[in-house]
Amino acid sequence: MTDDVVIAGVGMHPFGRFPGLSLKDLARVASIRALVDAGIGVKDVQAAYAANAMGGLLQGQEMVRGQTVLREIGIDRIPVVNVENACAGGSSALAQAVLTVRAGAADVVLAVGFEKMFVAELSRTLDALESAADLDVVRGLGIQFTAIYAMRLRRLIAEGTLTMDDIVEVSVKSHANGALNPNAQHRKPVTAEQVRGARPIADPLTLLMCSSICDGAAAAVVARRGALEAAGRPTVRVVASQGASGFTARPEGETTLSTLCAEKAYDEAGLGPADIDVAEVHDAMAPAELLYAEHLGFCPPGGVSEFFRSGATRLDGSLPMNPSGGLSSRGHPVGATGLAQIAELVWQLRGEAGPRQVARPRIALAQNSGGWLEGESAAGNVHILERTEAWD
Amino acid sequence: MTDDVVIAGVGMHPFGRFPGLSLKDLARVASIRALVDAGIGVKDVQAAYAANAMGGLLQGQEMVRGQTVLREIGIDRIPVVNVENACAGGSSALAQAVLTVRAGAADVVLAVGFEKMFVAELSRTLDALESAADLDVVRGLGIQFTAIYAMRLRRLIAEGTLTMDDIVEVSVKSHANGALNPNAQHRKPVTAEQVRGARPIADPLTLLMCSSICDGAAAAVVARRGALEAAGRPTVRVVASQGASGFTARPEGETTLSTLCAEKAYDEAGLGPADIDVAEVHDAMAPAELLYAEHLGFCPPGGVSEFFRSGATRLDGSLPMNPSGGLSSRGHPVGATGLAQIAELVWQLRGEAGPRQVARPRIALAQNSGGWLEGESAAGNVHILERTEAWD
Repeated sequence: MTDDVVIAGVGMHPFGRFPGLSLKDLARVASIRALVDAGIGVKDVQAAYAANAMGGLLQGQEMVRGQTVLREIGIDRIPVVNVENACAGGSSALAQAVLTVRAGAADVVLAVGFEKMFVAELSRTLDALESAADLDVVRGLGIQFTAIYAMRLRRLIAEGTLTMDDIVEVSVKSHANGALNPNAQHRKPVTAEQVRGARPIADPLTLLMCSSICDGAAAAVVARRGALEAAGRPTVRVVASQGASGFTARPEGETTLSTLCAEKAYDEAGLGPADIDVAEVHDAMAPAELLYAEHLGFCPPGGVSEFFRSGATRLDGSLPMNPSGGLSSRGHPVGATGLAQIAELVWQLRGEAGPRQVARPRIALAQNSGGWLEGESAAGNVHILERTEAWD
Repeated sequence: MTDDVVIAGVGMHPFGRFPGLSLKDLARVASIRALVDAGIGVKDVQAAYAANAMGGLLQGQEMVRGQTVLREIGIDRIPVVNVENACAGGSSALAQAVLTVRAGAADVVLAVGFEKMFVAELSRTLDALESAADLDVVRGLGIQFTAIYAMRLRRLIAEGTLTMDDIVEVSVKSHANGALNPNAQHRKPVTAEQVRGARPIADPLTLLMCSSICDGAAAAVVARRGALEAAGRPTVRVVASQGASGFTARPEGETTLSTLCAEKAYDEAGLGPADIDVAEVHDAMAPAELLYAEHLGFCPPGGVSEFFRSGATRLDGSLPMNPSGGLSSRGHPVGATGLAQIAELVWQLRGEAGPRQVARPRIALAQNSGGWLEGESAAGNVHILERTEAWD
């Protein structure tokens, strides 16, 4: 076993609407870019994990989704396993890749997530999204994620923990970051007025707060440290990989699933929230970033409004959150999201994030969650990455 | 890391047609039986993998299939990952469980596979099965697995490697074994005349040679050796867990995917085909057992007819194959099959297989394969299990 696992390369197909491209096209581009980034060829890959959430219901392709994609780049005769965990599928594929290296079963593993949500009929995409919850419970109720987030936010506003201003301003911040990201779906800065005035989705959420239907793919090469030639770039280690599923409705004040994953990850890494220099979190609706800031321990309980207003989470703040634009602006092609978070953090840690580069980060955290059952995420993962080399 | 991984418990829901039971009902029973067999409770499980192939297309439930099932038995706040690999999904879930223990990430892991193929419209099940291949290639061609196996068998008959008698007799053997298995779908012995005279499916295959549409579930508890209280029963170790995917069409004589997996597994275990005392192989059509006997090295190339006619593969032979009845008689609910093979082999190694018990086996091999792309399986796994205690 080795605990010394690195992300040797990352790649994305831009997120957005790509009517001319197939699911395979998207996945192929992200995979090849990750391999090129790692400085390796297809034949160097010893195992692969593929994450996709909706290909069965939207493209009709079940069972061997990863194989159909990966053979097109020449992946052959290595273990390929398809992983599904709703919106947390990408980080679950990453977690399996990390386990595979740690178990000594392979030195170089590809994890790729891909999704094509734009199909001819919008209603099919909405129906497919519904299957991120238990259909025996929710079928026909019409409860989408927007409604669930809206209910949480209304409660926090009613309690005085958050204001409508916070919810609007965090969305403005997300769009500002997304505007700096060439891989983002939504690349236009927006004003607070535009966010407030956008089409209402589920009060208090407006259109410009919500992630939207999206195509895209992202990939990462996970390797045993030392297995690949040094590429003359800073090394990015995986210092924590922790996941959980949370089913039972929780009484007041009990640990949320994202808190549970984060606590396990901090423990594994020997770090705490104060050590995190940059974070990508699961803001399927931009204001969710505020919820997760508290769940991850970035601010004291009840202190998120103050934390956010301090500017800490801006690109030039003390703990920039979602520099990529997050799910709400970078986009949220379900199976790809968890790996897009990793791509962004690797770029940030290496200093390759261009105009959205944050200042000399050493420790980065990715929080990805997916599905819901009885008021809690059905799956979640927290990964913590470390840049091992000092900044010049 | 520990290489010392055991199968601490196994369980099945019987295979067959269960119109009154849901997918969850099937999975719940198999999971609980595996836990009871391991002598543990739900709270002892530290991670879980769920395999299902067709729930998206047949039940509409994507993304969180395992979570919807496992929360019903009280699984909560542990990592749950959904694994899909067509007919090899069950063994892929097992492989991930083994990796998880080997990586030191958990000591006790549940792997469960479940499938409900009987739905109101047969055509939907057939369409869903088609997605085990690349739909961009096969959609609308109407090529089912039966046709692929039939073409292989016709060639072997034409070459003189197999006779029609062999193909019929191996089916008779499968049904005879299935008749002794209370968990089997088809539990009636059949005569050679009945097999020959059954409805033709794809020449030379008749109905009584083919696995059929089936509901069912199977589960295994994988544990670090020493993590669980000894149950006063023989210990079953996992001495090899090897998988691969095979995409590229192979020239004559080149290694098949099942041979590749077997060679890797023999290498890992430090064993060879001569050491195997009992095997479960992927006979989606009963005669496929004959193909796999050669691929796994149980007989010399071209020698399978002689090997089979010697009686070696019967329950009282030197290398009993598919004592459970195999896929063709025990049944083949896609995502469950790989774990049903493991359940059978664990029972055999412990001496708990009742009237189909083979004589004092010490080493057992399971070969599971799934999907197809360009004439080769899209995924395959070979596991080798060892009974560590001597027989009395």
